[in-house]
Amino acid sequence: MSSNALQYARDHREQHLAELKQFISIPSISAQPNHKPDIERAAQWAAEHLMSIGFSASVHPTAGHPIVLADWPGAGQDRPTLLIYGHYDVQPVDPLSLWHSDPFEPVVRGDDLYGRGASDDKGQIFAHFKAVDSYFKTTGRPPVNLKFIIEGEEEIGGPSLDPFIESHKAELAADVALISDSHMLRPDLPALAYGLRGLSYIQVELTGPATDLHSGSFGGAIYNPIQALVEMIASLKDPNGHITVPGFYDKVRPIDDDERQTLAEVPFGEEQFKKDAGVEQTWGETGYTVLEQVTARPTLEINGIWGGYQGEGSKTVLPAKAGAKISCRLVADQDHREISRLLCDHLKRIAPPQVRVETKSLHGGQGVLVDRNTPAIKAAAIALQRAFGAKPVFLREGGSIPVVASFKQMLGIDTVLMGLGLTDDNLHAPNEKFHLPNFYRGIEASIHFLSLLGGER
Amino acid sequence: MSSNALQYARDHREQHLAELKQFISIPSISAQPNHKPDIERAAQWAAEHLMSIGFSASVHPTAGHPIVLADWPGAGQDRPTLLIYGHYDVQPVDPLSLWHSDPFEPVVRGDDLYGRGASDDKGQIFAHFKAVDSYFKTTGRPPVNLKFIIEGEEEIGGPSLDPFIESHKAELAADVALISDSHMLRPDLPALAYGLRGLSYIQVELTGPATDLHSGSFGGAIYNPIQALVEMIASLKDPNGHITVPGFYDKVRPIDDDERQTLAEVPFGEEQFKKDAGVEQTWGETGYTVLEQVTARPTLEINGIWGGYQGEGSKTVLPAKAGAKISCRLVADQDHREISRLLCDHLKRIAPPQVRVETKSLHGGQGVLVDRNTPAIKAAAIALQRAFGAKPVFLREGGSIPVVASFKQMLGIDTVLMGLGLTDDNLHAPNEKFHLPNFYRGIEASIHFLSLLGGER
Repeated sequence: MSSNALQYARDHREQHLAELKQFISIPSISAQPNHKPDIERAAQWAAEHLMSIGFSASVHPTAGHPIVLADWPGAGQDRPTLLIYGHYDVQPVDPLSLWHSDPFEPVVRGDDLYGRGASDDKGQIFAHFKAVDSYFKTTGRPPVNLKFIIEGEEEIGGPSLDPFIESHKAELAADVALISDSHMLRPDLPALAYGLRGLSYIQVELTGPATDLHSGSFGGAIYNPIQALVEMIASLKDPNGHITVPGFYDKVRPIDDDERQTLAEVPFGEEQFKKDAGVEQTWGETGYTVLEQVTARPTLEINGIWGGYQGEGSKTVLPAKAGAKISCRLVADQDHREISRLLCDHLKRIAPPQVRVETKSLHGGQGVLVDRNTPAIKAAAIALQRAFGAKPVFLREGGSIPVVASFKQMLGIDTVLMGLGLTDDNLHAPNEKFHLPNFYRGIEASIHFLSLLGGER
Repeated sequence: MSSNALQYARDHREQHLAELKQFISIPSISAQPNHKPDIERAAQWAAEHLMSIGFSASVHPTAGHPIVLADWPGAGQDRPTLLIYGHYDVQPVDPLSLWHSDPFEPVVRGDDLYGRGASDDKGQIFAHFKAVDSYFKTTGRPPVNLKFIIEGEEEIGGPSLDPFIESHKAELAADVALISDSHMLRPDLPALAYGLRGLSYIQVELTGPATDLHSGSFGGAIYNPIQALVEMIASLKDPNGHITVPGFYDKVRPIDDDERQTLAEVPFGEEQFKKDAGVEQTWGETGYTVLEQVTARPTLEINGIWGGYQGEGSKTVLPAKAGAKISCRLVADQDHREISRLLCDHLKRIAPPQVRVETKSLHGGQGVLVDRNTPAIKAAAIALQRAFGAKPVFLREGGSIPVVASFKQMLGIDTVLMGLGLTDDNLHAPNEKFHLPNFYRGIEASIHFLSLLGGER
């Protein structure tokens, strides 16, 4: 009975929080090779935790970071099977100096738990661990068969997951998938995401002279690679914020009137958005609302740039090299491989002949739009309403969860996107946090969802 | 007699090289506060070395780095007084990974001595130490009165030197100044510089959102400060390489036909220039030769740029901040303070309203053009011809030596610019070197110069 599980979850919040802190304290930064042992440790921790709950679980090595699988088929063949996905890896923490507390010594301030990965995605996946745990500890068995897949390359768009899914179709077979790796608009307003943006993430490096030069002796007659880089990047958008890469928009599905209406009805607070971002004015592609810009339109952002002397004081150098990291958020039906290729080709084409250009694709994933009218989505909507006391809104997410497309394509299943984060959670930024009421209500929403999916009322 | 001094110098090359290595091994990087003790040590080393030669020398503290003064008035009041300037500070060494040997463990490979400061300026000033030393060790007295001023803020354009000169006019009083902190075009072709470019060096920092943001949640509706920065910087030059900052060219002295002819006669090898720079094609302001571009025209170079994630792999961040270091080489009659102000004001004016701009001036110095027909310049030309076996060419230098303008203004004296460096010395870059034949011939040229200045033939 879900009521027993709900009561158990309410009675054990302190313990659940303490366990989540343990998970967050493992610095499982997937982008940085020196954290490889922490990655292994986080995978092991997740597997052991699921085993302690009652699952059979295993850590599967890959060419990159390991994948955790867990299985509990105990509800019986007449019951549906739910596959829950999450990731145990986290973003890098720099600039570390801007954190108010150690990113890997999670601490509660007010209603929030601060730490790298608190919201993205350790806290969100852990809510489902604890929902399932609450069933096992009370009724002894959840009403649906359950599988977990927890990966360690989400933040780097690693190549291991898709081949793993392809080669483990039987183990992963399920009726529907559930992911909590997205967000709500306000703590009192749950959300179900039906659209996700894809991602193309590339790096471009320019080489001009063979070595760093004295800007006095050579300046004025050498194409400075920083100069070339800024000119190239500046040209990637026109004054209307439109991306100039030829072919970039060819496959973008336009926002139709119906969807424009749906998005207009989302209680999206532009003032709150500006407050969350810490800006006084927004800026974006002409002709679209802010919500459309961040969810339904593709973007191009410079994620990093470097070149020459960055230290204190002055160094009169004309550098040999400069580089940048550039990523595009994609919408259906853009293909991330094609967009990365178009962008890299374009950068090479527009570079002045005096510099050598190298590009590489670092990360990619497809955007998706899912059907809002499946039974699982309807069950999720009721579950969220019960836990949060408000009907969920249907959202398109600005971020990317490429596995949703992979599940559809390889396992033939739809995914329920039950975001438990908030827009001011500082994802990928200093002082990442998870709103604890969302953690506790998330556990309850998950309990309700399992119950409804299992045929209970 | 200069012949004895010359013989002594030839006989003691090994010893002179060993002493120079000691000087170079002190990592006196003026831009980096953690090297402050090394700065003090280098000043002390230079003062003690001059005392060991026969000078009265002292280390003068300043608000910044100390200044070394040395004096030997023993030639008598009827003889002229020569003031020799140099600097004991050096540039930072990064990127350290590109050095083939430790920058502060000087090593000879082939005919070159490798180490930070080998050419700029420890090796060049030390040639004059050893010329004077050779006189003291043989005839017992040079034929002219001598003063040295060796500073420690040249590479950072520090503020200490000018007020020091102003307040030590009596101690510095001289008939003419000599500086070796510039270059020759080829090892067999000595040079006298008559023009030097000035320098305006500024830093610009942009702040967009209050903190780093997730590019998926916010990308598309926020003005990314890197985007703003690259757009602003890219707009600073037009397609002809002309600088677009209003007023930038207002005071530039045009190159007249006579000078254009003089410059055209300089045996400047464009192929050698490209080889030294390690480029296949040059690039610069339309309508000017490469030599004009790097010596007689003002420039604007991006010396450094930074923002967002620069580490391995991908981080989907929309950064809060971005910045750049920008410097202009100036020609007579541009004022470096005015140009820095024009540039900073322009950057603030062209910034989009969504970002906050902070600028600061880091470094500055005036350009100069000196008279090519003074007796001292003529003596220097003969001295160089004797030491190198070829008549020197008259050059304009692309780099900046602001003290030349200060000497003229405050002490009323002209400066002889006897460059001993080469264009491929990797100044301000990894693997800085000093061509040892230039060191040894430089000592001899200095001995000849002292002799001629003292009235000997």
